[in-house]
Amino acid sequence: MSHDQSDPLAPLRDAFVLPEGVCYLNGNSLGALPKQAALQIQHTVQAQWGQSLVSAWNTAGWIDWPESLGDALAQVLGAAHGQTLICDSTSINIFKLLHAALERHPKRRVIVLERDAFPTDNYIAQGLQQIRGDLQLLYCDAHELAQNLDRDDIAAALLGHVNYRSGERLPLQQLQNIATQHATPIVWDLAHSAGAIPLALDLWGVEYAVGCTYKFLNGGPGAPAFAYVAKACQRELNPLLQGWLGHQHPFAFSPEYTASDGIRRLQVGTPPIVAMAALKASLEIFEQTNINTLWGKSCALFEHFVAALRERDLLSELALLTPCKADQRGSQLSLQHPQAQAICQALAAQHNVIADFRRPGVLRFGLTPLYTRFHDIDHAVTALHSIMRTSSWRDVTFPTHHKVT
Amino acid sequence: MSHDQSDPLAPLRDAFVLPEGVCYLNGNSLGALPKQAALQIQHTVQAQWGQSLVSAWNTAGWIDWPESLGDALAQVLGAAHGQTLICDSTSINIFKLLHAALERHPKRRVIVLERDAFPTDNYIAQGLQQIRGDLQLLYCDAHELAQNLDRDDIAAALLGHVNYRSGERLPLQQLQNIATQHATPIVWDLAHSAGAIPLALDLWGVEYAVGCTYKFLNGGPGAPAFAYVAKACQRELNPLLQGWLGHQHPFAFSPEYTASDGIRRLQVGTPPIVAMAALKASLEIFEQTNINTLWGKSCALFEHFVAALRERDLLSELALLTPCKADQRGSQLSLQHPQAQAICQALAAQHNVIADFRRPGVLRFGLTPLYTRFHDIDHAVTALHSIMRTSSWRDVTFPTHHKVT
Repeated sequence: MSHDQSDPLAPLRDAFVLPEGVCYLNGNSLGALPKQAALQIQHTVQAQWGQSLVSAWNTAGWIDWPESLGDALAQVLGAAHGQTLICDSTSINIFKLLHAALERHPKRRVIVLERDAFPTDNYIAQGLQQIRGDLQLLYCDAHELAQNLDRDDIAAALLGHVNYRSGERLPLQQLQNIATQHATPIVWDLAHSAGAIPLALDLWGVEYAVGCTYKFLNGGPGAPAFAYVAKACQRELNPLLQGWLGHQHPFAFSPEYTASDGIRRLQVGTPPIVAMAALKASLEIFEQTNINTLWGKSCALFEHFVAALRERDLLSELALLTPCKADQRGSQLSLQHPQAQAICQALAAQHNVIADFRRPGVLRFGLTPLYTRFHDIDHAVTALHSIMRTSSWRDVTFPTHHKVT
Repeated sequence: MSHDQSDPLAPLRDAFVLPEGVCYLNGNSLGALPKQAALQIQHTVQAQWGQSLVSAWNTAGWIDWPESLGDALAQVLGAAHGQTLICDSTSINIFKLLHAALERHPKRRVIVLERDAFPTDNYIAQGLQQIRGDLQLLYCDAHELAQNLDRDDIAAALLGHVNYRSGERLPLQQLQNIATQHATPIVWDLAHSAGAIPLALDLWGVEYAVGCTYKFLNGGPGAPAFAYVAKACQRELNPLLQGWLGHQHPFAFSPEYTASDGIRRLQVGTPPIVAMAALKASLEIFEQTNINTLWGKSCALFEHFVAALRERDLLSELALLTPCKADQRGSQLSLQHPQAQAICQALAAQHNVIADFRRPGVLRFGLTPLYTRFHDIDHAVTALHSIMRTSSWRDVTFPTHHKVT
C-alpha cells in the first residue's frame, strides 16, 4: 500500500480544484482553490450582492464577518474568541500592531528585527522610524535573538515565526517568555505558520500577531489578512489608523473617534466582502480535520522528501536549507543552489512541477498536507534528478514579461 | 413616449443584476452587481486561481492590476495615466495621502476639515494628530472653507467633494485654486462623486484624491479603494506605510525600503485580486458611455424627482436638503424629516423601495443613471406619498439585529 493509500487526509484533496497533470508544491505562496470557496463566492456575489444588495450587510451578516471569520480562524491559531480580526493586508496590520506595541514603553528606543525577515516586516518598521525618530532598528540573526531580547531597553520586537526562505522556525515560546520577563511586546508574523503548524497563541502568552490567509489558509490571491491581539492588551491598544468601522458606534456618525471595545477597534474601512467569502469557505475545511493531524502529515511528507533526495544523491549538489528537526521548521523544504532560479523554471517548464524561487539561490517547496500527496514528492524528486543529471536547467529561457519570480 | 422609452442609456440597465420588483435607489451606498462582474469573478476564481494558480500573477497579469485598473478608472476621474492606484480602503488611503500632504509644510499647523464630513475622514485626521502633536484641526462649515483656505498657515485640507448626507457639492475648482495660491495641499474625498459627476482632476489642478469604488462605480461590497496623486506630487510623496509591493524592486527582496517611482509607491501589501476582478468588469461599463451623458441623465432624474414630489405636495412635510442647482450637488436627493428612519424602513417593508437613512433625520435616494429608471422615481414618490398620507411609518418595527442603518 502506498503512502497516499494509507493517508487518512487523502480524501481532503478532493475539496480542492487542482489542475490535471500539475504537481503543485507552492501552496505556501498561493494556496489552491477550495471548491467550496468558489461556491461561496458565487453565492455571495449572485445571491447576496446581486439579490439582497445593500440589505445583505444585515441579512447576510456581512458587517460581522471580520469578527466571525476571525473567530473561525482562532481555532487554527489556538486562540479564544474575540481576539482575531480579518482585515486589511499583513503589512498594514504590522503597522497597526507594531505602532501600538511601541507605545507601551515610550522611553525604550530599540526595535529588534530579523536580518533575514520577509522584507515587508522591516520596511514597515523603517517607516515607523519616521514617526518616532529616536527609534533604533537592531537587525539580528536568529541565534542572536534570545540574548538581544534579554535586555531592559527593547521597545518591541517584530519576528517572523517561520522564515519564508529557509523554512526555519523560531523558538516562539522561548523568545516570548524572555520578552515577557522584560515586559517587551513582540509582534509575531505568522504568515508562514498559520494553518501550517500547531499554534497555541493564548497558551504561549503571545500578545500581538498578524498573518496572511492566502498561503496555507487557501483564502485566495491577496485575501485579507488577520490581526490577533490578546484580550489583556486590547484595552490599551491605540488604533492610530482610526477608521469609521473601528468606532464604538460606527452608525452614530459621531464627530469624534472613540475606539470600539475589543478587537474590532483594529478595523478601519469597509470589509472586502467578496474576498472574505472565499476565506469563509476555506476556513471551514479546517473544521474537517485538525492542525495536529495536518502537521503530522507535513512531517511525513518532509521526511519522505529528504529520503527521496538522499536516495537520488541530490543533497550534495542541492544543499538542504530547512532544519530537519520538526520543531525547528515550518511546512516547507528549501534547497540552495546557485542556479536555483533556472532549476525552478525547468521544473515548471519541463515537468509541470510548480515550486518557488527566492533570491538568492533558494528553491522552495511548500508542503500543504490538505492536498499534497506523497506521489507529488516522488514526482518532484524524479524531475529534479532528471534536471540535475542532464543539466537541462541550462535550456531554460526566462519569459521577459515575468515580474513575479 | 415615457422618459424611459426615450432614454438612450436605458439599455445599459441590462448590464446589471437587479432583483425583480425591487426599486433600488441606494446605488450611492452599494452599487448593483454588473453581470460582467459576476462572470469576471468566476473567471478569475475558476480559471486563473483554480487552474493557473500562483503563475496567474504573471500570466493573468494580476501583479499589474492595481495600476491597470487605476488607469481604467482614470478616464472617469479626468486624469492621465500613471496617477491612480487601486489599493486598500478609502480610510487607509486618506491616512497615506493626508500624512504625505502634511509633510509639505512642516511648520504650518492647521488642518482644515469639514464639520459635516463623512466620519472616517475626520477620524483619520484625529489619528494623525497623534503623530504630529502640534496639529490643530479646524472644523468648518461649507461656506467657511474659502475664507479659511485663503491663509498662509494651513498645512493641508481634507475635503469631501460631495457631502454624503445632503448631496451638497463643494466648489472644487474654486477651493483648489485658493489653496494652490497658498501652496496648500488639499486631499479630496471623491467617494460620492467618482462615477457620478464629470471630473477633470488634471485640468482642475487637483493634487491628491481618494475614493471608494463600491458606490457609483459598482465594484462590490468593500471593493478596494483608489488613490490619485498628480504626477508633479509623486516624486516627493512619502509612503509612510512602506509595504513590499510599493518597493522599487519588490522581488529583489532588498533589506532597505526604496520607494517605487510613480504611483505604485502607494501600494502596501498584496492586491486583493478576487475583489479587483469585480471592479475590472465594472469599470468596463463606463467605456460604453461617458460621464457627461450619465450626469445628464442624473440631472433629468433629479428634476423628475423634485417635480413629482412637488406634484404630490410632499416638499412641505419633507424638506429638500439637496441643492437644486446641478453644479451644487452630487447624484442623490436627500429629504429631511424627524421620522426619516421609520419612513425609510416603511419604504422598504411596505413598497420594496430601497433608500438610505442617515442620522439625524435624513432620507437619502441615490440616482445611478446606469440603471435607475424614471419609472423608479415615480414608484418611489408614489410610495412616499402613500406612507406620508397614511402615516404608515408608524407601523414599522425595527429588526433588532440590524446593525447597519
